[in-house]
This record gives sequence, C-alpha cells and structure tokens, in this order.
Amino acid sequence: MEGEEKVFIIGLGLIGGSLALDFRKQNEQAVFFGIDTDENHVKEALERGIIDRQADWKQVSEADWVVLAIPVDKAVDVLPEVLDRINENTVVLDVGSTKEQICKVVENHPKRRNFIATHPIAGTEFSGPSAAFEGLFEGKTNIICEIEKTAFGIQEKALQLFKKIKMRIRYMDPKAHDKHIAYVSHLSHISSFMLGKTVIAEEQNERDIFDMAGSGFESTVRLAKSSPAMWAPIFEQNKTMVLKSLSEYIENLNHFKTLLETDDYDSVYAEMEQTNRIKEILKGIHLKKELSYGE
Amino acid sequence: MEGEEKVFIIGLGLIGGSLALDFRKQNEQAVFFGIDTDENHVKEALERGIIDRQADWKQVSEADWVVLAIPVDKAVDVLPEVLDRINENTVVLDVGSTKEQICKVVENHPKRRNFIATHPIAGTEFSGPSAAFEGLFEGKTNIICEIEKTAFGIQEKALQLFKKIKMRIRYMDPKAHDKHIAYVSHLSHISSFMLGKTVIAEEQNERDIFDMAGSGFESTVRLAKSSPAMWAPIFEQNKTMVLKSLSEYIENLNHFKTLLETDDYDSVYAEMEQTNRIKEILKGIHLKKELSYGE
Repeated sequence: MEGEEKVFIIGLGLIGGSLALDFRKQNEQAVFFGIDTDENHVKEALERGIIDRQADWKQVSEADWVVLAIPVDKAVDVLPEVLDRINENTVVLDVGSTKEQICKVVENHPKRRNFIATHPIAGTEFSGPSAAFEGLFEGKTNIICEIEKTAFGIQEKALQLFKKIKMRIRYMDPKAHDKHIAYVSHLSHISSFMLGKTVIAEEQNERDIFDMAGSGFESTVRLAKSSPAMWAPIFEQNKTMVLKSLSEYIENLNHFKTLLETDDYDSVYAEMEQTNRIKEILKGIHLKKELSYGE
Repeated sequence: MEGEEKVFIIGLGLIGGSLALDFRKQNEQAVFFGIDTDENHVKEALERGIIDRQADWKQVSEADWVVLAIPVDKAVDVLPEVLDRINENTVVLDVGSTKEQICKVVENHPKRRNFIATHPIAGTEFSGPSAAFEGLFEGKTNIICEIEKTAFGIQEKALQLFKKIKMRIRYMDPKAHDKHIAYVSHLSHISSFMLGKTVIAEEQNERDIFDMAGSGFESTVRLAKSSPAMWAPIFEQNKTMVLKSLSEYIENLNHFKTLLETDDYDSVYAEMEQTNRIKEILKGIHLKKELSYGE
C-alpha cells in the first residue's frame, strides 16, 4: 500500500476491523472508509480509529481497496454489486469461511479479475469492532482460491500486503477448501455449540454445575460463544461437507458409546491412545508455521 | 504444615507433582517422599526438586501426609493399603476425578476418618512430573466429598493447606459430584477425543488438512492430548453418568444434523443463539471465583 489510498472496509467486525488496523500500519497515509448495516458498529469503529469516515455505496467507485468482511450469505449478494461499481485498478477481497459459492457467483462477472478470494484462518470467539485488534493475522495462514482468475497486478498488490502483515499464503481450489475446512473448523463449532447446549440443559435441573467447570470445559466450549449471524450462513453454504463431517463425528461418538456400554475399556484406551497423535500433529503445524514466516 | 513433616506423594504426575511444589512453599522444612511405578518419573521428580527422596511402601507408616495422585482404578486398590499402614494422625487425601467408588471402598475401613476425598478441578492436557508446576491450584475449585466422615483434626489440617494454596472449597456428596462432573469434564474429553479421531481419519485421505487448522480447532481438540491411562478408568468408574451425558450430546448433534438436512436455518440460528448464554455463564464463574479467593 502506498500514498493516499482509499480503503473501504465493508463489515466492521472482528476480521474487517483487525485487517483495517493492520493495513493502516503498512500505510499511514491511507484513508479508511467504513460501511456497516449496524450504526453502532460504525460509531465504534470511528471511535477506535479503525476507520476515518463512514462511507456510502456510491463512494465505492473511488476505492483503491475493498475488503468484504460480512457474513457469507450477505457476501454473495454484495460482491457482484461492489464489482459493478469499482474502477479497473481496485483490489477487491473477501475473507469468508466458505469459498465455493462466492467464487461461483462472480465467475462470469466482467470485473472478476479485480477480485481475490481469501480465507484468513484467524479469529477469536468474539465479534464486532470492539473485538478487533492489531496483529491478529501475524503468523496465520491465508488460503487463497482461484488465484489464476485474479489479474496479475491485483494478485501482486494483495500478496504483498498479506506478506507485510506476516501471513503465510496457501493456494487451494474452492471445492477442496470448503471440504477440508468443514473438518478443521466448521465441525469444531458444531461440537462446541452442542456441548454447551447439553451442559446448559443439565444445569436447568442441577444448580451450580458450572461451579465445577475447569479449563478443559472452557476450552472445549469456547467456540459456542461465536456469532450465529456469522455461522448459520456458513453451515448453509457448506451444507454437504458439514453434514459429511458431522455424520462421521456422530458415528465415532456412537462407536465410543458402544465400547463403554459393552465394558470394552481396552478399546476405549486404544481409541484415545491413537488420537493422542494429535499432539505431534499440532506441534508439527506450529513448527511449519514458524519456519514459513515471511516466506 | 509445620516442622519437619513427612509428605508422601504417591503418583508423581502433573497433579501429584504440582501439589508437592505448592505444599513445599507452605513448609520448607517438610521432607517429600515419592512413590511411582514408573522409575523415570521418580528420577525426574528428584531432579526437578518435586521430591527429596524415593520411598517404599514400608515407610508410609511414618507419613504425616499421604497424597494419592494415581489413576482412579489404581487409587481404589491402593487407598485401603495406605490406610492399613498409617498412624492415627496421618492426613490421607486423594485427588481423583471420580468420588463415588473411592468413598465406597473405604466406607468401613477403621481408618476412614484419616481420609479426605478431594477433587481439585485443575490440570492441563499434559502429564508426568515434567508437566508439574507451581501455582496450578491458585483460584481453582477443590470439591470435597463426605467431609463429615473425616476426623475434625484431619479436616482442619487439610482445609488450612488448601486455603493457603488459594483453592476455593466446595462440599458435595460423591454421587452428585460424579453426576455433574460427567457433564462439565468427562463429556468434554470424549467430545474432544472423537473430534480428533474424525479429523485424523479424514487427513489419511487428504494431505495438509491440518495446515488449515486455526486456534478454534486447537482449542476444541486440546483435551484429546490427555492421558488414556488416566481417562479410561475414569470413564469406567463413572460409566452410568458418562453414558447419560454422552447420549444427550449425541441426541443434540443428531437434532442439529436434522435441522441442516431440512434446511431449517432459522432453527440452526436459534440453537446457536440460545447456547451463546455460555458466555455469561463462564463470565459468571470467573467472577465468582475472583470474589471467593481465600474465603
């Protein structure tokens, strides 16, 4: 980013807000414009210095950058409208957790080459501009889909910026992205939400149950704090793969239940021992991420 | 703790080791003796200053304190033997995650009054003396069962020590403990282990899937690093309540799956929104814990 660029952030939540904060560090002369359907978010983003000005749709034609950071059901409607309005040098990027439908919806758009489809694997269970913070993306993976459909000049600008905020870049086709992310992200959210539901239901009969909760429960149930407005559309757009991973999860739980019912504790032990491999796998990821910083 | 007391730690893992480190800070004159079936654990505990000496069973008769921190299936065998050997002033405590069977197994023991059944709700996903650290128990809850069956002098000594290491004390009967803990702890471990299993199985077909994992997945799958030697016996001892909570969890997952299959995203949204309550619940716990420090 260079000079007095105009950056439009559409959706002033955790991701949009944090990207604005990080981008601003790369170009202090840039002016940040915000658009959000929630007026309180606009106000808060102005107060926190995430954006400099509230913008309206007409101004999008002046943008050098447009970041689309809204729920995935809204993004598929808004992206074509953004592309309709921009000039030929504008970089448009989305950051949604599903990539197949958003790529599909603009595949024949005359400005397709201005768009770069990204999924920064970063976030917390909190939402809104108050949850945004600098440095959220450092060392995190950004998955970019259909890079070959983005114009070379646009690719270059976007990739430079992602590298400056220290993200690792991975390329993937949208279908493979949506399939894999169902396992390593979407399923975790369902498992966490339903765990929370199960324990809350029990608490209605038994008071003070949460007084007994330790850090293990908190860790497993953390994602159940996530925003339904963000997650319901993700499950809808990725329905097939989410259902596949969820069915396999339920099958594994049922199998474990049968082992307990039949007092087969050797197999219970073996199931857990085999899954302990996750330790090395997670260690391996951290190592890989450290090694590939700024590559 | 006062003077040159002899403290026997049976089981030099995360909990036994961390308790030793915290107890030592309360009485630097005390001498710590360690017993563990794993010679490497004894060696490591000596090297880390967790214990001063390795002990054998015969010496237990000299103990002022005995801490039983071994898997719950071993604890029900070892506790009566410990009680057989101790003198009338020895404080014996266990720290297991199930309380019904251990209380049951010594209910008629002539030295029952020397025993205090405790469950410190503290730990990490790591195990062994290398995982032990000072301060693990600060601000954590310790659930004590059947306090009325412990001699007054023994109660007093143990409670003073727990307060000194800044634990909150809660009293509960063993049956209620085992029921509630199934929901807020044991179930989380199963949900995490089976999530890990599901994703590992998918990875066998699809390489690099873990490269896409973010902090959400890590948080939900963290407990799948836990020790099978510790957890298989817990599931066995608490089979009935674990199965009850697991069945309810599977039922909730199946319901969520049906909502997705029938494209009922309004209900998907509502399920998540209702479960978002967990935010306030968890905040409430932290507040309560802060307020009751050292009470």
